[in-house]
Amino acid sequence: MSAAPVVLDAMGGDHGPSEIVRGAVAAWRTHGVPVVLVGREREVREELERHDATEIPVVHADEAVPMSERGAPATAGASTSLAVGCELVRRGEGAAFVSAGSTGAVVSCAVRLIGRAEGVLRPALAVALPTLPGGSTVLVDAGATADPTPEMVAQFGVLGTTYARLVFGVPDPLVGLLSIGSEPDKGNRLIRGAGRLLHELPVRFHGNVEGHDVLAGRVDVIVTDGFTGNIVLKSVEGCVRTALSMTAAAGIAAPEDLAVVARRYDPETHGGAALLGLRGTLIVAHGSSGAATIARACQVARDLAGGRPRTTP
Amino acid sequence: MSAAPVVLDAMGGDHGPSEIVRGAVAAWRTHGVPVVLVGREREVREELERHDATEIPVVHADEAVPMSERGAPATAGASTSLAVGCELVRRGEGAAFVSAGSTGAVVSCAVRLIGRAEGVLRPALAVALPTLPGGSTVLVDAGATADPTPEMVAQFGVLGTTYARLVFGVPDPLVGLLSIGSEPDKGNRLIRGAGRLLHELPVRFHGNVEGHDVLAGRVDVIVTDGFTGNIVLKSVEGCVRTALSMTAAAGIAAPEDLAVVARRYDPETHGGAALLGLRGTLIVAHGSSGAATIARACQVARDLAGGRPRTTP
Repeated sequence: MSAAPVVLDAMGGDHGPSEIVRGAVAAWRTHGVPVVLVGREREVREELERHDATEIPVVHADEAVPMSERGAPATAGASTSLAVGCELVRRGEGAAFVSAGSTGAVVSCAVRLIGRAEGVLRPALAVALPTLPGGSTVLVDAGATADPTPEMVAQFGVLGTTYARLVFGVPDPLVGLLSIGSEPDKGNRLIRGAGRLLHELPVRFHGNVEGHDVLAGRVDVIVTDGFTGNIVLKSVEGCVRTALSMTAAAGIAAPEDLAVVARRYDPETHGGAALLGLRGTLIVAHGSSGAATIARACQVARDLAGGRPRTTP
Repeated sequence: MSAAPVVLDAMGGDHGPSEIVRGAVAAWRTHGVPVVLVGREREVREELERHDATEIPVVHADEAVPMSERGAPATAGASTSLAVGCELVRRGEGAAFVSAGSTGAVVSCAVRLIGRAEGVLRPALAVALPTLPGGSTVLVDAGATADPTPEMVAQFGVLGTTYARLVFGVPDPLVGLLSIGSEPDKGNRLIRGAGRLLHELPVRFHGNVEGHDVLAGRVDVIVTDGFTGNIVLKSVEGCVRTALSMTAAAGIAAPEDLAVVARRYDPETHGGAALLGLRGTLIVAHGSSGAATIARACQVARDLAGGRPRTTP
């Protein structure tokens, strides 16, 4: 096992510590990812004992940020598992932080405590989407910054390139800018401006891509603002569910068979969204994450933190 | 048959006049929609003769706007079928104009010749999407205005309400604003501003909806800016194709069975996008439209023009 461990928020998520601890055990034992759990020590240790995994270290934090604050940019108090975990990363005692807590709370706490990496204008959420040919495309920004400048959007291309290198193992990722036509003059002012800047940045810029390219696997990185990115991500998730439900309703295939396809687009499978551009790596897992997703998020965190490609199956 | 006819551009579309004329014949005979064809008279009459439908009137236009100008805001010359058709609507000799020509060319020509309705800040494209419960939701703006103001976006809610009344026959349509969270403070500046204004307009405003609501049938009208709307529309189309291709590739169902579901999301089925807010009704059909789509577009055009609900199957 390598250097600094991945710090895992034991108190985040809808299922409480039991599911997170199961994920930590899987990450540790199956994938060889060193982890540290942060949360109410007694509760967490009890869970670890169930799995006979008392070798996994625990750092105590008095409080949990309630999931009811989902969406609200809550200020996590210093004694919360969120703040204690981010603090460990800030001090270099953890390589990365993983939480299934409320996205708003996790992001605001991490930005405040871990801070931005030098030269980064604004952090961005990166989410890996499975594509038709079988690979993945990373969508960035998937919702961190609703009103970025063209400079910020262009820089998301650089952040996404790093992600595709480290997580997908693509040596020279191809970057597309999400717009409403393939020509460079197509788009709104923000995206046209970002397109001009992307030509000058150290990325392999393909030019514009459109909505129907999102799952087509034409590029490794799709760059967009956080408003559009969040809507596209949720539209895609909803749309796959709808298409499969319609297929089931039409009696064409059995719902349990269709679940195989649905699972590829489940937020579960993404392994969480990475907040790129901080001085330490942060992964926000979906609140409903089960153990397998938490374990996957820990792998992605380790890859991003250590610059060690790649764990993608 | 009622008052002014629907004017149909015989020269638009990828398949040339033969498919359009077949659509005109179907609209006329099967759905009782009065139509006038605009295009090179000899070619059009030859096609009409094939269907023994010489009773359909033809207005001559020397030229066709080539489909290669797709996307380019081409200025259609006065002798093109586009300009001649729009001119008929402007003079009140046609109730509506339907074209399967290049969207950019059709929209710019119609705005120039037909002009905006009084009080309308900016026209918007409306596209009807089939929803999971079985009804439809109209997405507006699906791509006419990439950089609207909050006032324009709010007004799209009024235009969409009229569409849902006339085309879907919903007496009091529910309007949702596409954003990145359900609370009114969620979104970018543009959408938050539009949300405040929507409360003051004569629409039944539900508040924000999110990406996963696009096909969920929670509202009758989804309001968005033309940049986001165009990307969402194309993402949804691409995504349904991808989910069904994955289902076929996994051997879960036969491609020909899945085609039933795919057809619901085919641009073919939408019956075209309506440009709302002009002094006359305009429907832009997809370039690849076959006869059935053209006929459906003529029905929608008649409904929107005549304020006569409803033809939706």
